Amino acid sequence: MPLNFTRPVVSDRNELALIDWIRQRAASAPNLQLGIGDDCAVWQPRGSPLLFTTDVLMEDVDFRVDETTAQLIGRKAMAVNLSDIAAMAGRPLVALVGVALPKSRGFEFAKQLHEGMQLLADEFGVAIIGGDTNTWDGPLVISVTLIGEATERGPVRRSGAKLGDWLFVTGPLGGSIFGHHLTFTPRVREALDLHRLVDLHAMIDLSDGLAADLHHLLDESSVGATLFEETIPISDAAHQLPDSRSPLDHALSDGEDFELLFAVSADDGRNLISRTDVTSPRHIGEIELQPGFRIRTRDGSLRELPRGGWEHSF
Amino acid sequence: MPLNFTRPVVSDRNELALIDWIRQRAASAPNLQLGIGDDCAVWQPRGSPLLFTTDVLMEDVDFRVDETTAQLIGRKAMAVNLSDIAAMAGRPLVALVGVALPKSRGFEFAKQLHEGMQLLADEFGVAIIGGDTNTWDGPLVISVTLIGEATERGPVRRSGAKLGDWLFVTGPLGGSIFGHHLTFTPRVREALDLHRLVDLHAMIDLSDGLAADLHHLLDESSVGATLFEETIPISDAAHQLPDSRSPLDHALSDGEDFELLFAVSADDGRNLISRTDVTSPRHIGEIELQPGFRIRTRDGSLRELPRGGWEHSF
Repeated sequence: MPLNFTRPVVSDRNELALIDWIRQRAASAPNLQLGIGDDCAVWQPRGSPLLFTTDVLMEDVDFRVDETTAQLIGRKAMAVNLSDIAAMAGRPLVALVGVALPKSRGFEFAKQLHEGMQLLADEFGVAIIGGDTNTWDGPLVISVTLIGEATERGPVRRSGAKLGDWLFVTGPLGGSIFGHHLTFTPRVREALDLHRLVDLHAMIDLSDGLAADLHHLLDESSVGATLFEETIPISDAAHQLPDSRSPLDHALSDGEDFELLFAVSADDGRNLISRTDVTSPRHIGEIELQPGFRIRTRDGSLRELPRGGWEHSF
Repeated sequence: MPLNFTRPVVSDRNELALIDWIRQRAASAPNLQLGIGDDCAVWQPRGSPLLFTTDVLMEDVDFRVDETTAQLIGRKAMAVNLSDIAAMAGRPLVALVGVALPKSRGFEFAKQLHEGMQLLADEFGVAIIGGDTNTWDGPLVISVTLIGEATERGPVRRSGAKLGDWLFVTGPLGGSIFGHHLTFTPRVREALDLHRLVDLHAMIDLSDGLAADLHHLLDESSVGATLFEETIPISDAAHQLPDSRSPLDHALSDGEDFELLFAVSADDGRNLISRTDVTSPRHIGEIELQPGFRIRTRDGSLRELPRGGWEHSF
């Protein structure tokens, strides 16, 4: 069966109505010369290095339509990208949104989906400057591309952790599946605050889980680490999961916490802990030269965490 | 059934191997400070206004996997975005690629898909600086976001067509379904050449079909037009379609030609026609004040083209 280009999807009346609605709803941005409605958006950046990230969210992989709301799905699609900008300690600026929308979901669903993206974008000063909205017979897919800028202190990479650095996380981990993965606040403000206060050597946002993302940071920095079992913050949700795995195992291996993991010098680490004006990040470990990472348990012994197949190890 | 974040999709061994392969394959770009592999790419633009476009391609809507190759699908995903940059007469620079890849297709398919994108990107000097590659049980979806820059003459919008302007197209129209929609060359070079030679008042790329896209250009410019039946270039493919519609009907209504439609002053139009050093665009009509558009047929009569429901009218 040939594809039917004679009645292109984009000319569907409901789609045009949706695009008009999105166009009116979109906020402006400084230096935005042309927003939604032409072949491209035109935007004049201010001159700082720009940060680019893109994330694709897929039905039944990243969310279930029947277990949440369209607004929360849209919110998550924007939030995961904001978290990537936060991980570089950048300022988010403009976004483009691509959607493959199941025809069966209807106009109101599509509006609510977009509203969820727009509300979070508004909260973080992001202008949605373009997009591509299509309907089809397949499942819901949302792709957001977010562009930010580095601050005058530059972008923070994964690769700068050094021997003796202290490792921190910005909040409790594990059990995100209970709802946090849809409602989390991307740590954009916290990252910008930290970037002003201390010299961030390396940073990553926790999307794949603490263990996996720590491996990424350590690999890129060519170092290893020891974590402290007793200081790893574990979420309430991680205690409530109905399975045989321990809360610590969930904190290490569950994905989608979207907290930040970062490395600073021991001096900066002590400085951070002593301050009362910032939400206290938790000191959970230290950088060492020996590759991989270990956990110092409450009884003082060390357990190596193998790179793969370590689920159920606690 | 809850989502399973414990074994995140992104940690799948094949996916990591694919991402490593993409990372090695990616070309660099001027002023690219950090490419694929961190939370964001970091790129320092040169200072011109930037152009942003995004397009989502969906299996069985924009392509059929069993009727083409993975390379051509990837190529199309990049090409449709290049065509949007061409429509503003801009220079394409960097791209981000999001893919939802059916697990059943395998690693080689994914590589070929990416190779198709990369080859066309290379041809147009575009660096793929980031992306998000995921596998799932759903159909293939590809989302490309392309960033370009305006030339010193500025971006060309849809909204600048004026009374008395001549309308041109850059190539033959209709019947794209026979293969052109997968193999077309985006008119980036032609647009840049034209932008140097003449004052482009308004331009759009033909993705929805001549009639629909002309309506977009006319609406944005608040003018109307008359087209000349005898000069509208019709592709060979449009003559070969096995249905009751005329070749002209196909040229007007088939989508995905990805030629450029543009308006210039009559003087510039005559200048273009007289030149032999540029691929001759075809003069297919003129801008008028009366809204909508009409076709002057070979016998000299005028036929109004209604905005909707005009299929099969020729």
